[in-house]
Amino acid sequence: MAGDPLEDVQQLHADAATVRPGGRTARVGEAVIDATLAELAEVGYGALRIDAVAERAGVNKTTIYRRWGNKVGLVSTALIERRGELLPPADTGTLRGDLLELLKEIRLGLQTPWIAALLRETGPRTAENSDLYKLLDAFWPARFRASGAVLVRAVERGELPPGTDPDFLLEMISGPLYFRLLMLGRPLDDAFLEQTADFVLNGAHARPPTADQ
Amino acid sequence: MAGDPLEDVQQLHADAATVRPGGRTARVGEAVIDATLAELAEVGYGALRIDAVAERAGVNKTTIYRRWGNKVGLVSTALIERRGELLPPADTGTLRGDLLELLKEIRLGLQTPWIAALLRETGPRTAENSDLYKLLDAFWPARFRASGAVLVRAVERGELPPGTDPDFLLEMISGPLYFRLLMLGRPLDDAFLEQTADFVLNGAHARPPTADQ
Repeated sequence: MAGDPLEDVQQLHADAATVRPGGRTARVGEAVIDATLAELAEVGYGALRIDAVAERAGVNKTTIYRRWGNKVGLVSTALIERRGELLPPADTGTLRGDLLELLKEIRLGLQTPWIAALLRETGPRTAENSDLYKLLDAFWPARFRASGAVLVRAVERGELPPGTDPDFLLEMISGPLYFRLLMLGRPLDDAFLEQTADFVLNGAHARPPTADQ
Repeated sequence: MAGDPLEDVQQLHADAATVRPGGRTARVGEAVIDATLAELAEVGYGALRIDAVAERAGVNKTTIYRRWGNKVGLVSTALIERRGELLPPADTGTLRGDLLELLKEIRLGLQTPWIAALLRETGPRTAENSDLYKLLDAFWPARFRASGAVLVRAVERGELPPGTDPDFLLEMISGPLYFRLLMLGRPLDDAFLEQTADFVLNGAHARPPTADQ
C-alpha cells in the first residue's frame, strides 16, 4: 500500500469496520495483529521485524506490506485496534465512578506486556525515535477520543463545567499513573487511584450529579 | 568503600557538606560529578563505564571506586547533588507563584541532556533495570523533600489545608509534565504550565493567601 502510512492506517481502520466478520481478510488481520503484539512484547518496537511477525502469524510478509504498508503502519493499526478504540467506557452513573473505571483501565494497559515493552522505549522526542512517535501520534488521538467520551458525558450531565477541555483533563488523569509507575516505580494500588480520582474531580471543579451527594 | 551503596551515598552526602570548599577533595569531587553527567548525556546509564568517567575527569578509577563504591553510588551522588538538593525553591509569596516556579524548574530538568538520557532508559520496574531503580529510589526522596518545602510552607501559610500530603501533590504536579513530554511528545509551553498550576490549586483545595485573592 502506497502513500502516507498514517492516512493509510486511518483508511484501513475505516475499511476494517466493513470487513465481514469471520471472513478470511478478518482472520488474517487478527492473526497478524496478534503476532505483532506478541513480537512487541518479546523484542520491543525498535527490534521488531516484519519477517518475524509474518512467520509467527503464518502469512507471507508481502501480505503484511500490501495491507499495512510498513512497520509504522502495522504497529499503529495494532495499537489503535487493541488500545485506541476501546469498548465504550463504563457508564457507572457518576463521574467519580467513571473516572475510577478509566483509571483502572489505564492501569490494566500499563501492566500489559506489549505496552510495557513500548514504554521502555519512550523518551523525549528526538530524530532517532521519530518512528516511535509516528505511532504515538497516530495512537493518542484515537485513545483520547475514546476515553474522552466519559468527560463529554459528564459535561452533558452537568457534573463538569461547560467548556471543560477533555484532552487536558485526560493528561491530568493519565500523568500521575505514568509518573508513579515509570519514575517512582511504585504500585498503582486502588488507594492511589481513588486519591487521584478525587484530586481530578476537585481540579476540574466537578459537581455531584444530584444535590444530596 | 564497602557496604550498601545507598547508605554510602547518604553518608558521602553528609560528608560532602563538611568538605572544605576549594579543597582538593572538593575539586576532585566536582570534576568526577561533571564527568559523570557528561558521560550520562552521551551514552546513558546502561552503557556508562567508570573507566570513561575517570578518563574524562582526569582521575584514577580507583579514586572513584574508593569514594563512590560503584556505578550506582557514583550516579546516585551525581543525581542527588545536581538535581535532588536544589537551591531553596523560589518563595514568590503565593502558592500559585511557587507552583509555577516549581513547574518551570521541572521543565528545565526534563530538557537537561543527561536527564533526558536517563528518561530514555526508564520503563516499568523489572529485574533488568533494578540498578536504574536503585538510583531513582535514592534520588526521589531527596528531590521530593527539596520540592515539598514549597507545599509545607503553603500549609503553614494557610493556603493548603492541614494534612495535605506533599508527596502525593508532587506526583500530581510532576505527572502531567512527564506524560506530556514522554508519551504525547508535546511541548511544555508556559500556557500548559499555568493551566496545570491552576488545576493543582483546585485539586488541592488551595485557598488564596488573603481574602481579596
